[in-house]
Amino acid sequence: MTPTSEPVLDSYKRAAIIGGGVIGISWAGLFLARGIDVVINDPRPDIEDLVLAGLEEITPALAELGLPTENLTAGLSFEADLGKAVADVDIVQENGPERLELKQQIWQTVEQHAPAHALLATSTSSIPASAVAVALEQPERLVVGHPFNPPHLVPLVEIVPGEKTSEATVEQARAFYAALGKKPQVLRKEVPGFVANRLQSAIFRECVHLVAEGVVTEQELDDIVTSSIGMRWAVAGPFRTFHLGGGPGGLPHFIEHLGSAMEANMWPILGNPTFDEATVAKLVEQANEAFGNGTVEELAAERDRAQIALMRALGSTPDASTTRA
Amino acid sequence: MTPTSEPVLDSYKRAAIIGGGVIGISWAGLFLARGIDVVINDPRPDIEDLVLAGLEEITPALAELGLPTENLTAGLSFEADLGKAVADVDIVQENGPERLELKQQIWQTVEQHAPAHALLATSTSSIPASAVAVALEQPERLVVGHPFNPPHLVPLVEIVPGEKTSEATVEQARAFYAALGKKPQVLRKEVPGFVANRLQSAIFRECVHLVAEGVVTEQELDDIVTSSIGMRWAVAGPFRTFHLGGGPGGLPHFIEHLGSAMEANMWPILGNPTFDEATVAKLVEQANEAFGNGTVEELAAERDRAQIALMRALGSTPDASTTRA
Repeated sequence: MTPTSEPVLDSYKRAAIIGGGVIGISWAGLFLARGIDVVINDPRPDIEDLVLAGLEEITPALAELGLPTENLTAGLSFEADLGKAVADVDIVQENGPERLELKQQIWQTVEQHAPAHALLATSTSSIPASAVAVALEQPERLVVGHPFNPPHLVPLVEIVPGEKTSEATVEQARAFYAALGKKPQVLRKEVPGFVANRLQSAIFRECVHLVAEGVVTEQELDDIVTSSIGMRWAVAGPFRTFHLGGGPGGLPHFIEHLGSAMEANMWPILGNPTFDEATVAKLVEQANEAFGNGTVEELAAERDRAQIALMRALGSTPDASTTRA
Repeated sequence: MTPTSEPVLDSYKRAAIIGGGVIGISWAGLFLARGIDVVINDPRPDIEDLVLAGLEEITPALAELGLPTENLTAGLSFEADLGKAVADVDIVQENGPERLELKQQIWQTVEQHAPAHALLATSTSSIPASAVAVALEQPERLVVGHPFNPPHLVPLVEIVPGEKTSEATVEQARAFYAALGKKPQVLRKEVPGFVANRLQSAIFRECVHLVAEGVVTEQELDDIVTSSIGMRWAVAGPFRTFHLGGGPGGLPHFIEHLGSAMEANMWPILGNPTFDEATVAKLVEQANEAFGNGTVEELAAERDRAQIALMRALGSTPDASTTRA
């Protein structure tokens, strides 16, 4: 069992991670566990300590996912000069602040110094590749590779091509993330928020409404979700769920008979809350009640352990999804 | 290991199931597996065949959930006369058509003939207990016990009291469903669609929008959900997820820094699709592509096996959630 037995990964010996925050550290951990050397580029003076501490924190999860973690940091280095950092890499994964001008500057430097074969991907959740690429000489090379946080754990990576991103770049990104053990999904149109965050925003609007209206508390709403739709959607998405809920006629029957009722009776009455002072106060108070029994780190570690148990049960851990020698 | 080792269930020897459709059969199977005799009331002439076939179909899932299924139908009987059907039972679970007048008629008969101690619950997903209860002499006895389909498998039961439902009835319902191994959740207000279906409607609206706009196909959207938010929400609900995504400051920090951005940038751009001819045609065509490789029954059985594996991994099967002798 070696981390580079996935043939596609033979072409990825070295990665540049731009921005060593939570997302960058998570990518770095996953790349290192897959046998890819990582150079971190981040201007902060204490970046080495931050990254080492972060990697230590996620190492147990990487191990539970079935990835090798011995000598994880052997291939790790730091380079504060961006041009030098990307000079000899096979992939650049950028996780900088969500500011368009800054990203344009970063990518202008990267395209000048990165090798011609390198995959160029930004983790952005909100800035389209098209907008960054207007500042580039090789806009065809840049693609969004948006992970669902944290990248080392949650399988989804949304690949969102900009207007000028080439097919070859999209395919390169898809093959790379798949070889890492992720579940890449290429979007067919560049829309704000991409897909997962739009869906998350849609449900959260109604969550906030129901709590603000006093129908349920945050804890009660979370319990409702985990014991029904969450559990369902871990196994089958919304369309498949309604296909299976429509009887022998499946989704077509469901839409014909219940779709119009949903459109007429449910969609118009869904809530339109605002984060006004009273709503925020209520949400904060209930969050303290519901989640006050541990630090965020402790609760996250607990959640991640359950997450990995679930992924193992469904055969969707990275070690199950790639060929190992 | 006996099915009635949960003390609360000692008081439930016999149940009336009104309406032997998919929901009624699922409740019947769960009740029988828990050692509760079941009498089915349904006017259809072929109801016995329908129920026996339905029970046979769900028996493997009951067994996989860790419930005893030997001689499952030993305690099963049928009674077409509603008054007689409920005359000697400890619980009435009604799953009739979603028509207010019909439900009022049914419950008028039930309250006249059911024993005074019996729990009276309706599985309705859309008719508030308050509306049914205006026709009753004992409105305090009726409560909504709305399962997420199918009841024998998905843990959630939404308990929704009407304006006149007594505290005692609510507590009786909560204790009964919990003893069955379900995850009952009492709502604090009677709102249309209750909670789970409102959340489902909210996300489905955006799902339909994204497919109608050609951002993703149904299959791609489902894959995005199962590999990100679905998997997350099986383990931690939306509020906990954002609490853990907000850094050390948790949900309060998230709301302060990202909540207003979500309100300003995401909520206004979420879609408002309609089920017009073109949208329905697209949804039906993609459903045939995505789900045409098996009958609904086959695909549902496959989904349910994955569902049970997930529940086992999370320790949320009924046999794990109740004390067994």
